[in-house]
Amino acid sequence: MLNVVIIGSGNVAQHLISTFQNAANVTLVQAYARQEEKLLHLLPADKITNSFAGIKEADIYIISVTDDAIAGVSAQLPFENRLVVHTSGSVSLEQLDPKNRRGVFYPLQTFSKNKAVHFTTVPLCLESESESDYPLLEQLAKEVSHSVYSISSEQRKSLHVAAVFVSNFANHMYTLGNDICTENNIPFEILKPLIQETANKIESLPPLQAQTGPAVRNDRQTIAKHLDFLTDGNKKAIYTLLTQSIQNSNGQKL
Amino acid sequence: MLNVVIIGSGNVAQHLISTFQNAANVTLVQAYARQEEKLLHLLPADKITNSFAGIKEADIYIISVTDDAIAGVSAQLPFENRLVVHTSGSVSLEQLDPKNRRGVFYPLQTFSKNKAVHFTTVPLCLESESESDYPLLEQLAKEVSHSVYSISSEQRKSLHVAAVFVSNFANHMYTLGNDICTENNIPFEILKPLIQETANKIESLPPLQAQTGPAVRNDRQTIAKHLDFLTDGNKKAIYTLLTQSIQNSNGQKL
Repeated sequence: MLNVVIIGSGNVAQHLISTFQNAANVTLVQAYARQEEKLLHLLPADKITNSFAGIKEADIYIISVTDDAIAGVSAQLPFENRLVVHTSGSVSLEQLDPKNRRGVFYPLQTFSKNKAVHFTTVPLCLESESESDYPLLEQLAKEVSHSVYSISSEQRKSLHVAAVFVSNFANHMYTLGNDICTENNIPFEILKPLIQETANKIESLPPLQAQTGPAVRNDRQTIAKHLDFLTDGNKKAIYTLLTQSIQNSNGQKL
Repeated sequence: MLNVVIIGSGNVAQHLISTFQNAANVTLVQAYARQEEKLLHLLPADKITNSFAGIKEADIYIISVTDDAIAGVSAQLPFENRLVVHTSGSVSLEQLDPKNRRGVFYPLQTFSKNKAVHFTTVPLCLESESESDYPLLEQLAKEVSHSVYSISSEQRKSLHVAAVFVSNFANHMYTLGNDICTENNIPFEILKPLIQETANKIESLPPLQAQTGPAVRNDRQTIAKHLDFLTDGNKKAIYTLLTQSIQNSNGQKL
């Protein structure tokens, strides 16, 4: 049985609390929250503490707070030489206070407050400062996810940039498409099956091969018509830059 | 029973042929293909013709050929005053020869040769020159899809631009994410659940509200780190422009 303490009460912390409570071989010993009431819908009061001094003994401590707060929280922990990990994609392992054995337990997914996530499919990116701590971290990860990876701080940095492209920027493309629909009295609903199918395609094809549209066909007439249609300078600039980039990507590889 | 002739043998034409063959109240009378052998895996030889003169009588003729060929094909049809539609997102109704009653039957989806599509979920965007032809077109559409819309040529033009953003450009974001993974020895697999969840989110949230990441949080430190990480000028330019655009979108609405 693995004993775990979660430190934090935000989005990711709450998803982790629910997940560990339902895991077969994990005991969620306790959660720390500055405001205990934030976790009362998930845990009984005696499993929540708002004082660092009150934190109980466990095999693994998971700090899941905002990026800026990780270093400070880890420095305030009143114990040493225990396994302490954070859950951030963009903070290096070295930000954790070296008085404890350090590691990272980064779930690569976009979490929303009111939307359940099937944690078994969430990729967990693990790192431990000491090789001897890795098996324990891996054991915990495999209790809750089918998808566990060893990722160094350096790799995690690049992974986080890649995630911005495939998630934040892709979602912004949906926003711009939504804007165009709204401006032209078209229900955005019409585009949803296309969005789903575009995301589904990369399960069976590399994205470079899945590319369709006027840019990759070098259909200059359609590209010119579209640029003419886009009167908004920002959308025009994005259309131009991404059309060029699609043509570069495919030129390089063909 | 609706009698339909398909003119064309490409990707969309083949998906339509399969779909209409399985529809309860539709008879696929015939298909026209310049090279008949392209359709022999779908239809018996006596249902395929390669001569315009050999095209049989039907209620609706669907021209599904490349955009550039639509006008020419419609001019070569050896009959008049019948209902003739095309399937293109970016060609106006007026490109069809006016000797026939004109319309559009545009399936808004990305079709790949070797990937089946559940046609019942494909949005069909319909337009007819004469109001009296619309019910017939709608009847046909509803035989094969749950999602049928009346869309003018002007609206279709804007819809096509919106589709480029949400599909072609979103897919290119996947390509750039894939590149970053490859360059840093990370399996692209790790990002696939995130891609799926990002696409799934907009089923329950407008994309503007679903936006996450350093741009919308205005997390300048992370943005600076990411720009520093991106040595490739093209990716850097895209990162900068899209970060700015996300901040504009959210600034306008907040």
